[in-house]
Amino acid sequence: MSGASDGRAAVLLLSGGLDSYTAGAIARDEGYELHALTVRYGQVHAREIAASRDVAQDLKVVRHIELDVNLAAFGGSALLGEGAIPKARELDASDVPATYVPARNTIFLSLALGWAEVVRAQALVIGVNALDYSGYPDCRPEYLAAFETLAALATKAGVEGHPCRILAPLLHMSKSEIIRHGITRGLRYELTHSCYDPDPSGRPCGACDSCRLRARGFEEAGLDDPVFRAWPRP
Amino acid sequence: MSGASDGRAAVLLLSGGLDSYTAGAIARDEGYELHALTVRYGQVHAREIAASRDVAQDLKVVRHIELDVNLAAFGGSALLGEGAIPKARELDASDVPATYVPARNTIFLSLALGWAEVVRAQALVIGVNALDYSGYPDCRPEYLAAFETLAALATKAGVEGHPCRILAPLLHMSKSEIIRHGITRGLRYELTHSCYDPDPSGRPCGACDSCRLRARGFEEAGLDDPVFRAWPRP
Repeated sequence: MSGASDGRAAVLLLSGGLDSYTAGAIARDEGYELHALTVRYGQVHAREIAASRDVAQDLKVVRHIELDVNLAAFGGSALLGEGAIPKARELDASDVPATYVPARNTIFLSLALGWAEVVRAQALVIGVNALDYSGYPDCRPEYLAAFETLAALATKAGVEGHPCRILAPLLHMSKSEIIRHGITRGLRYELTHSCYDPDPSGRPCGACDSCRLRARGFEEAGLDDPVFRAWPRP
Repeated sequence: MSGASDGRAAVLLLSGGLDSYTAGAIARDEGYELHALTVRYGQVHAREIAASRDVAQDLKVVRHIELDVNLAAFGGSALLGEGAIPKARELDASDVPATYVPARNTIFLSLALGWAEVVRAQALVIGVNALDYSGYPDCRPEYLAAFETLAALATKAGVEGHPCRILAPLLHMSKSEIIRHGITRGLRYELTHSCYDPDPSGRPCGACDSCRLRARGFEEAGLDDPVFRAWPRP
C-alpha cells in the first residue's frame, strides 16, 4: 500500500463548486487530512476542473488527483452534452432534471472508496444536499446509508473491521446555511465555479439551476457572491 | 436518453477472460441483448483488452465500450504494477491476495449501472465467482445483494420502479462447471485471456493464480484448454 497515512484521513469528492469545498472544510476542521478526487467525466462545464485546483490548494489537501472517466461515452445527460441545459426551471420541483447524470454519485463514491482503501482513509466526504437536489435519487439520506453498507462489504478494509464512513455534512442544510458555514471558516467562494453553462471566459450564465440556487443562497444569507468580483453580474 | 432498447437488455462487464465470457453467454441465452463494458483500469495484463474485443464479437453484443479509468493513479495492487504478481500461491487460501484491486468490482458495477440506466437495461451481468475468489470481498453473495439494494436507490430508473438486477450466474460454480457450461454453448475459449503476467507475445505464464485456476478447471472438466493451440504449454 502506498501513500498510507497515520492520522485520520478522508477522501474528498471535489467538484470545484461551493458545496464540496464547504464539505471539505468541515471535514478538515474535524481533523481529517484530505485527499481530494476530482473526476473529469465529460462535463460540459469543464471550467469547474480549474476551480477544483484552486479549492484543493486552499484546503491544503495532501494530494489532489484528477481522474478521467468519460461518462459521455454512455450519454444520458444534458451535463454530458445531450440537449440543452435547462434554464429558469422551477427550482423546488421534485422531478429528476435533465442535468441528472446516471449513477454519477455511485461512480464517484466507488472511485473514492478505492483510493480510500489504498491510503487507509476512514471516511469519504461528499457535498451532497437533500434539500436543493431533492430530484436527484443519489442525494438522499437512504441512498448514502445504502452506500455505507455496501462499502463495509466491498473492501478488504471493511472485511477486516475498518469500514469507511460517509461524511455528508451538508445533507440537511439549506444553501444559505452552507454559505454561512463557509464564510465563518474563511472560505474564499470566489475560487469556486457552480454554473452548468458558463460562457467561454468562465462567466456564469445566471439562469441554470446551479446559478440560481447559488444566487438564492447568497441572497438568503444576506451576502454578496464574491465570484462576481471577476465578472459583471449577469 | 440515447440507445434505448425495447427488449430485455443487460450491461455485461467483460474482461476478456473466461468467466465474463461465459456469464455473458448465459445471459444472452436467457434472452438479454448485451451491452459490453470493458474497463482499461491500468491492468498490467492489458492483453485481456484485445481478448475482450474478440469475445464481444463472438457474443454478438449490441455495442462494446472500452472505458479508460486509470486506477493505477490510486495504486494499491500488484495488478496495477505495485510489486510482483504472486506465483505458485496456495490457490484455496482465504486471505486477500496482492492481486486484489481496491473497490474494483464496486467501480465496475457503478459504471455499468450508469450505462444501464441510459439504455434502460434491466440487468447488470458480472462473472464473479465466490468459490475460486473467496479471498476477494467483492465476489461474495452478500456484497452483490448490497449492490443490488444500492442500485435500486441510486438511479432514476430505480426510483421509478425499474431497478436493475444483478446477474451473477457463475457465483456458486466451480471453474470446471463454468467451462462445461461454456463448451455446451459452443464458446471458443481460445479467444479468452486469463493470465495476470503474460509475456510480451501474450503467452500465459502458467504460474499466477489465474493461470492455475484455469488449468485446474480444464483438468477437472477433462478437457484441453484451447488457448494453448496458439502457444506451447508453459
